[in-house]
Amino acid sequence: MQARRLVLKWMKDTGLKVRIDNVGNIFARREGSDSEAKPIMSGSHIDTQRNAGQFDGVLGTLAALEVAATLNEKRIPTKHPIDVTVFTNEEGVRFAPSTMGSKAIVGNLSRNEIYQQRDAQGVSYLEAMKTAGLDISKLSPPSMNRGEIEAFLELHIEQARSLYDSRIPIGVVTSIVGVRAFEVRFTGRADHQALPLGLRKDALVAAAEIVLAVNQIPRNISETAVGLVGKLTAYPGMRGVVPGEVEFTIDLRDTTISGLDRLTSEVTSRISEVCERRGLRYELANVSSSEPASMSERIIKTIEEASSKLRILSMRIRSGAGHDSQNMARIADVGMIFVPSKDGRSHCPEEWAEWHDVEHGANVLLYTTLSLDKV
Amino acid sequence: MQARRLVLKWMKDTGLKVRIDNVGNIFARREGSDSEAKPIMSGSHIDTQRNAGQFDGVLGTLAALEVAATLNEKRIPTKHPIDVTVFTNEEGVRFAPSTMGSKAIVGNLSRNEIYQQRDAQGVSYLEAMKTAGLDISKLSPPSMNRGEIEAFLELHIEQARSLYDSRIPIGVVTSIVGVRAFEVRFTGRADHQALPLGLRKDALVAAAEIVLAVNQIPRNISETAVGLVGKLTAYPGMRGVVPGEVEFTIDLRDTTISGLDRLTSEVTSRISEVCERRGLRYELANVSSSEPASMSERIIKTIEEASSKLRILSMRIRSGAGHDSQNMARIADVGMIFVPSKDGRSHCPEEWAEWHDVEHGANVLLYTTLSLDKV
Repeated sequence: MQARRLVLKWMKDTGLKVRIDNVGNIFARREGSDSEAKPIMSGSHIDTQRNAGQFDGVLGTLAALEVAATLNEKRIPTKHPIDVTVFTNEEGVRFAPSTMGSKAIVGNLSRNEIYQQRDAQGVSYLEAMKTAGLDISKLSPPSMNRGEIEAFLELHIEQARSLYDSRIPIGVVTSIVGVRAFEVRFTGRADHQALPLGLRKDALVAAAEIVLAVNQIPRNISETAVGLVGKLTAYPGMRGVVPGEVEFTIDLRDTTISGLDRLTSEVTSRISEVCERRGLRYELANVSSSEPASMSERIIKTIEEASSKLRILSMRIRSGAGHDSQNMARIADVGMIFVPSKDGRSHCPEEWAEWHDVEHGANVLLYTTLSLDKV
Repeated sequence: MQARRLVLKWMKDTGLKVRIDNVGNIFARREGSDSEAKPIMSGSHIDTQRNAGQFDGVLGTLAALEVAATLNEKRIPTKHPIDVTVFTNEEGVRFAPSTMGSKAIVGNLSRNEIYQQRDAQGVSYLEAMKTAGLDISKLSPPSMNRGEIEAFLELHIEQARSLYDSRIPIGVVTSIVGVRAFEVRFTGRADHQALPLGLRKDALVAAAEIVLAVNQIPRNISETAVGLVGKLTAYPGMRGVVPGEVEFTIDLRDTTISGLDRLTSEVTSRISEVCERRGLRYELANVSSSEPASMSERIIKTIEEASSKLRILSMRIRSGAGHDSQNMARIADVGMIFVPSKDGRSHCPEEWAEWHDVEHGANVLLYTTLSLDKV
């Protein structure tokens, strides 16, 4: 909320007109000269993973704001309104659905589904908004239909290392992976550590098989598939007690729906096989999903031309990370601009983008915006 | 502390003379008729694992007290003093060394080593004793030498299922396993979940290999060897972040020193191999050790005779769990009496011993005590 108030202040200082919808998405408008022209939207998110980096999301938000500020400074009018956008809960940390705000906008999650989401302490999203002082009673529901906006643009760090390794400062995203995220619980039996190995129902040993499977199965499916167990808790979690219960997350990603389907099917079969063999029960809940998305060929070309004009090298790449852009692609032409992450690091304090790359990225965003405005 | 105060009250109500040493062990004496006779000690512990059962330790403590109370009721004098004993910190839950109180008595851990033990919050054992209101300034150090006591007896639930499965109410323990316990930290690298699998340094995937190895290696070493990873924590522990660090415990047990040595060597080689192959760093600390111990043949026979006299079936068995008795065996003739654990369960709320088995166990303890007194 502190970061959010700061960004809102900067938006107002830039002379933008702020609108907030009733799930918390922010739209800050610089008006265009043509009252009939549809907005060019640009932005990202300011929420973050815990103990993560300073660029993921924030870069795209502040660059969009900087584009608006630069147009003001240089007194450059645009035909289209420019909407600087901050999506709510992109990371899905406290409330599970990732890219929640943009899913709401495109109708992939209803406002009520969002309000009823609960955090680990059982607090609902609606209660959390109230506690944070967000008075939503007068705000409009999040909603946009195909044809309502001219384009959506998002600048972001790559969060992998293809740009960094090839020393190319601009990545033009062609597609974004889809994600299937699960919460899993294995229930075995807590016992004394003296119990012979063959008599135990050790939920952690079973979960260890799945951690290895989630790391192996994607390699057999496609070059773009990945899987991760990022969170795992063993209960009761004591040196002297066989873990009777383990809770863990599974995150599966690929660039095609068929890849995602095969990943999901092979991982869930493995869970079922391991639990049957070891005499454990399991529960599996799909807590977040997003479909793979293609970026607009028109905007890809516009970004490439903007880079050329600025004499900055660019290359086409896929995004292995999910972004709000993949939801916006359901209702609009969307383009994403990537800049290199140092060593490919992200979601960690070491996350870093060099200043000259940040500058290149923001300039490409500005030129792309102006090109789209001229059409 | 609440349980401790209750047991102390019962000891005083039984007319016993209580002595406490300066690591917290309790000795409650019923005087004997011969002032030259060495004490027959009997007892166990009242600390427990978290969310564990109601018999482990408590049974042996209360049965020893019941023996003293019964001798009082029946006005049966003994030649030897009877010392009802409660050892401090048998489980090693808050402070890592298991069977800490008895280790101190036999000189296997110094009082200062104990005082400097720290819990997960960094509180030392000495500070924790002060906070609990234990004024240790006037108490004597824990210390006993070979020849000082006549015998040590401990009644306990089996914590495995050989008695339960063979429907024999009394187990006469011949030997107790040795334990090597470790705390391990793997350090890899936290990254975004989009990072391709081959570029990650995922500490949880590496730890999963070790969880499986600790469950497999003991099977290749001996029929009595077991291993357990009971506690495992992944950091930062989020669905969207590759775990950069994992902390876990390893508990290895066998009935011979050579078995323990082979277990330790194979598990530590595997750790080193996995971390080298995956580019991780590791730290390994031995936090608790105990050597395998043999019970006294003289006392084994006395327990068997007591069972026969009471017409209760008994069988000789090994203990796969560690007990204070294994430390006491360094300085005295020791015997352990086991009663069945229902389904072999222990260290869990379902831990259970049938009342008739408890009664049989306590009667065998009484008769064994009286037989040893007659010698």
